Amino acid sequence: MSNLNFSVKGVSLSATKFENKARNFSFIVDEPPSLGGKDEGPNPVEYFLGSYAGCLNVVINLVAQELKVKVKKLEIEVNGDIDPAKFTGSTFFNRAGFQSLNVAIKLETDANEAKNAEIITKAKERCPINDNISNPTQINYKITTRAALN
Amino acid sequence: MSNLNFSVKGVSLSATKFENKARNFSFIVDEPPSLGGKDEGPNPVEYFLGSYAGCLNVVINLVAQELKVKVKKLEIEVNGDIDPAKFTGSTFFNRAGFQSLNVAIKLETDANEAKNAEIITKAKERCPINDNISNPTQINYKITTRAALN
Repeated sequence: MSNLNFSVKGVSLSATKFENKARNFSFIVDEPPSLGGKDEGPNPVEYFLGSYAGCLNVVINLVAQELKVKVKKLEIEVNGDIDPAKFTGSTFFNRAGFQSLNVAIKLETDANEAKNAEIITKAKERCPINDNISNPTQINYKITTRAALN
Repeated sequence: MSNLNFSVKGVSLSATKFENKARNFSFIVDEPPSLGGKDEGPNPVEYFLGSYAGCLNVVINLVAQELKVKVKKLEIEVNGDIDPAKFTGSTFFNRAGFQSLNVAIKLETDANEAKNAEIITKAKERCPINDNISNPTQINYKITTRAALN
């Protein structure tokens, strides 16, 4: 299979609200009032955490199928701390993003514990989002700015 | 301001479908049929891209406000290529995740071009998701597996 391209395209609806379009889907990002928004959707970092949980679900199930293991129950929680100082511009001591992430996975299958451990190990290796969080990724920008005519 | 904690908690509804809960919100992750799902929501990597676009929206607007610049229009597109070989387990030559990301930003304001450039530069530095994509982040796992009783 050749490379797969994924994309979102979105427009700012307010200083905190943003509508993303991905294929036939759209989803709203906003911030809670404590972060200046009107709470009309999950905030950016919550989608980030949820993308990781959703990715782990896909890969854990894929690896389980390969190993002929039936997944009976799978729950995933992802959380982390952000120091808002850099985001708000007050200090630049800590990094801007999550300092680390905590992932709690509860997996119940019809296999033994050794097989379950194998599933988790392989899933972590093969999960795209795990890779992009654990390792640096180059970002190429194309910026088009337009000053006011008035 | 002290550290802010963000979290999602979710449950697997199928091999590809996952329901995330973040505070009072829930959002469904799925895969298109070409990737084994039923296309009931954006897929994990689309949420990942959208979280980044939504984060840039917040930080660009925040920096603009600080500089007393009015944002008139802001459109953001984020895309990237994934080689599915590692994900599917066929080869391990390329990395599992996005090989790089392309971000196209169209920004229209009431300020001059130099000010617009300053907004973009500062926003990139202060965007939490930009940091977590550009730089490595440690992931701590807590795995609870349960083998079948039968």
